[in-house]
Amino acid sequence: MKLATYTANGQTRTGIVVDNTIIDTGVDGSMIDLIRNWDALKPAFEAKAKTASDVPLSSVQLEAPVQRPGKIFAIGLNYADHIEESEMGTPERRVWFTKAQTSVNGPYAPIQIAKSTFSADYEAELVAIIGKGGKQVSAADAPAAVFGYCVGNDMTARMWQHASPQWSLGKSFDTHAPFGPWIVTADELGDPHQLGIRCFVNGEKRQDSHTKHLVFNAWLQVEHLSVGMTLEPGDVLYTGTPGGIGAAMDPRQFLKAGDVMRVEIDKLGHIEGTMVAES
Amino acid sequence: MKLATYTANGQTRTGIVVDNTIIDTGVDGSMIDLIRNWDALKPAFEAKAKTASDVPLSSVQLEAPVQRPGKIFAIGLNYADHIEESEMGTPERRVWFTKAQTSVNGPYAPIQIAKSTFSADYEAELVAIIGKGGKQVSAADAPAAVFGYCVGNDMTARMWQHASPQWSLGKSFDTHAPFGPWIVTADELGDPHQLGIRCFVNGEKRQDSHTKHLVFNAWLQVEHLSVGMTLEPGDVLYTGTPGGIGAAMDPRQFLKAGDVMRVEIDKLGHIEGTMVAES
Repeated sequence: MKLATYTANGQTRTGIVVDNTIIDTGVDGSMIDLIRNWDALKPAFEAKAKTASDVPLSSVQLEAPVQRPGKIFAIGLNYADHIEESEMGTPERRVWFTKAQTSVNGPYAPIQIAKSTFSADYEAELVAIIGKGGKQVSAADAPAAVFGYCVGNDMTARMWQHASPQWSLGKSFDTHAPFGPWIVTADELGDPHQLGIRCFVNGEKRQDSHTKHLVFNAWLQVEHLSVGMTLEPGDVLYTGTPGGIGAAMDPRQFLKAGDVMRVEIDKLGHIEGTMVAES
Repeated sequence: MKLATYTANGQTRTGIVVDNTIIDTGVDGSMIDLIRNWDALKPAFEAKAKTASDVPLSSVQLEAPVQRPGKIFAIGLNYADHIEESEMGTPERRVWFTKAQTSVNGPYAPIQIAKSTFSADYEAELVAIIGKGGKQVSAADAPAAVFGYCVGNDMTARMWQHASPQWSLGKSFDTHAPFGPWIVTADELGDPHQLGIRCFVNGEKRQDSHTKHLVFNAWLQVEHLSVGMTLEPGDVLYTGTPGGIGAAMDPRQFLKAGDVMRVEIDKLGHIEGTMVAES
């Protein structure tokens, strides 16, 4: 099943995406509430997903599927080719940073180039949305702890990221966490590590890899993060970016106002954002 | 004014602390809702604070004043003596990391030593609670953007902090962000950089400093963070810890189950937590 958060007629609701249409779930509350009650809601949703909808997707505005995640963790240096281009060496331990709740952005919304930087850069990523979550979840149990998957762009104010040994601030600029366009539930997707992932800037292919190349896969990520920290419904994990970022090009290329960035992942769809100068 | 979040008779409410009593604000919603509506609520609250209350503070359970902050940012290496003991050198740029929303803990609640670590350590800190917040807030405008101040303990799974170049995971273990016991509003407190700050473990003084020694003060912190990121009502800033952490003692001392940690700051009160082994 594909689940979205969308705005129509001034109201933001959760919906089921069927082909090119959307069906209001009829459930009040946010996607987090929906995920919390998923076991109870699922049968009715499955029935609903078989009915027709007369609301075309193109008539609504898709929002980030989870608008206010409790936490967003993101892993750095998790594809071999990206480790090489970053010239930071293979980390002995996993490199986890965070993105602020306020950086969440819709799948097709504009992305700001902050006044304080010239170095906006993209990172195409598979995004996992936590379902049941929990603590001390083993890798074997991790698939059942994840609700579903999306396409994400771990937008980065690159100079701010590297201005400090800690990356979270340079990863948390407003609009810098677009994801979507909807959540494909884990049961519908199957193995999330069998997906092609690509990023294009103005139609030029910049990243082209496959989630089978993740150094630490999604299950290992859930296991590692939940060692000391409870993962909750709607928490968001950015699972790492492959090679091809702008900062590693020769000469390096940062995004300019008007640039259009498209990230696509097999079976999950695509997101697309246009860079705008912060006003 | 002193504002608290507290539980009594199974209900969690916001309250005004007057001497050793608490008055229900009568306003539904969380502390974040209250802060958002502060301008409208303040006159009635000031009148209420002059009335008597028959509810002793000791009869209620004080909770973290903001139970679900949108974000928690914390600065490292921000007192000269702590920089020296950490042997990490004075950072050229500010070192900001984050603590997860799920790490929030009540001011007197037990603090867990996670199964996965033996290295739980304390860090006494002045905590700022964002009020109006905003973006690109200048240091001159920062005092008006802060709602008030608390006592905090930036609890750290020390080995996890240093197992990766990124600290946020080792700073985000469950129960590792106790703060409180209430918010002293900015107008009542006056200058937050004129306060003695102390930490005791089992009555032994471990940290003893003064907020005038902050390398980057609270106003500069608000200015820096808001360069690219919108600060929102109820966001939490841990402003740095002075020298005296357990990891820097010779021999180094980590916390054991049963240890009682007390952090106190002039005019703000104290918080106190007992270490327990994670079950």
